[in-house]
Amino acid sequence: MKKKNKKIHASILIIGNEILSGRTQDLNVKFITNWLNEECGISVQEVRIIPDIEKTIIKTVIELSKKYNYLFTTGGIGPTHDDITAKSISKAFKVKYEFQKEAFSILEKYYGKKKFNDGRKKMAKMPSKSLLIQNPASAAPGFVIKNVFCLPGVPSILQSMMNYTKKFLVKGSKIINKSVNVYTVESNIASELNLLQKKYIKHIDIGSYPFFRLGKIGVSIVLRSSNNTKLKSCLRDLMLLIKLKKIKTFKI
Amino acid sequence: MKKKNKKIHASILIIGNEILSGRTQDLNVKFITNWLNEECGISVQEVRIIPDIEKTIIKTVIELSKKYNYLFTTGGIGPTHDDITAKSISKAFKVKYEFQKEAFSILEKYYGKKKFNDGRKKMAKMPSKSLLIQNPASAAPGFVIKNVFCLPGVPSILQSMMNYTKKFLVKGSKIINKSVNVYTVESNIASELNLLQKKYIKHIDIGSYPFFRLGKIGVSIVLRSSNNTKLKSCLRDLMLLIKLKKIKTFKI
Repeated sequence: MKKKNKKIHASILIIGNEILSGRTQDLNVKFITNWLNEECGISVQEVRIIPDIEKTIIKTVIELSKKYNYLFTTGGIGPTHDDITAKSISKAFKVKYEFQKEAFSILEKYYGKKKFNDGRKKMAKMPSKSLLIQNPASAAPGFVIKNVFCLPGVPSILQSMMNYTKKFLVKGSKIINKSVNVYTVESNIASELNLLQKKYIKHIDIGSYPFFRLGKIGVSIVLRSSNNTKLKSCLRDLMLLIKLKKIKTFKI
Repeated sequence: MKKKNKKIHASILIIGNEILSGRTQDLNVKFITNWLNEECGISVQEVRIIPDIEKTIIKTVIELSKKYNYLFTTGGIGPTHDDITAKSISKAFKVKYEFQKEAFSILEKYYGKKKFNDGRKKMAKMPSKSLLIQNPASAAPGFVIKNVFCLPGVPSILQSMMNYTKKFLVKGSKIINKSVNVYTVESNIASELNLLQKKYIKHIDIGSYPFFRLGKIGVSIVLRSSNNTKLKSCLRDLMLLIKLKKIKTFKI
């Protein structure tokens, strides 16, 4: 297979009532999608947010792990009663939910034998044969089982751990973005963008996003592709089109 | 049915490559979930984020609209080629994708006949028999078809429109939150919270969320229920438990 066009697809599963209830703003989707593309050329195709309900977690993990090359879960791997991700994933894959020796020893060393209580011990219980994702921020490791990567929900901790997932991942081809910002409204360039998209339908994904800035209306036109040559050619066509329509561009 | 315990469930479908690529931070999930609970007592049970791909939109809309009382979609109802939500939903429900007369007349009036170009006209095309959701921010209306509510992706515009969905919604019982913040670590209270959750398993959902604040580690304990009496009783138990453990509480 030609490495340049290797497509690796992932999905993200956010597990947590705090996101679904609107209490907490999710910040992990944006971080993980950017990191996967930048560092590994892996493209996220679907995200789901579900509550802390065992049968929902089991069903969704089975479905998404079959559908994509990788599944990344966030949340539910802490010490309390509502942290049920590890147990649920054990059930999804029909493997034992048991102490992972390495995780047990990391946590025992971190807390000291006396303070290593039941809640903390729970964080060493994982699906049988899980491999660890190191946690330099707060010790409790994440884990990999089959093609599923389980990470914590707290953004700062998750972010400190992403690099340790790299060794388990097969790399794909990175998606490159080119953005052009113009002072106009979408409907003024809609037909031209449509023609441009048709011309490059095989290689480029063209997005158009309106915004308001300093009281003016503008549009960000975003070209996305893993083929740099086609991207450059499409960008040239776009700039010509903008020039012909006498629209001003600017940098944000 | 006793109105007090009426459970109405919704899901949210975020349609847009810009969210999945990590370019844009989603802000609509938090707003919609909070609004639905506060204003209508409707609880969001699932969120999905998917790309601008017709067959994916069709499949997901069919699935989620069957599974929950309501489905709210965001994104893809603008004037450009990548705005394919209205057309895809028409296909999902096997109805015509056609001009909605009222929407056409609103937009024609807003832009004026001369400036009412093809891109703008596209925003008046909807699944047959759609009803309108008014848009006080930028005129182009959203729409309701069966139990599906289609809203734009730009957060400020979406927020201006939510109130206009109210007349179409059956109200449920509001979920009430009580939060207690304590200076401790989760594992120090894990076993007590577990017992408390077991005691109130039928009525209360207890969540535990670690955080870092001013260099100190803390936990937010969140009690959620539509039963205020049980909630007060559970809160009393929790405060007693915290007192017995000699843990300090504080307000954020």
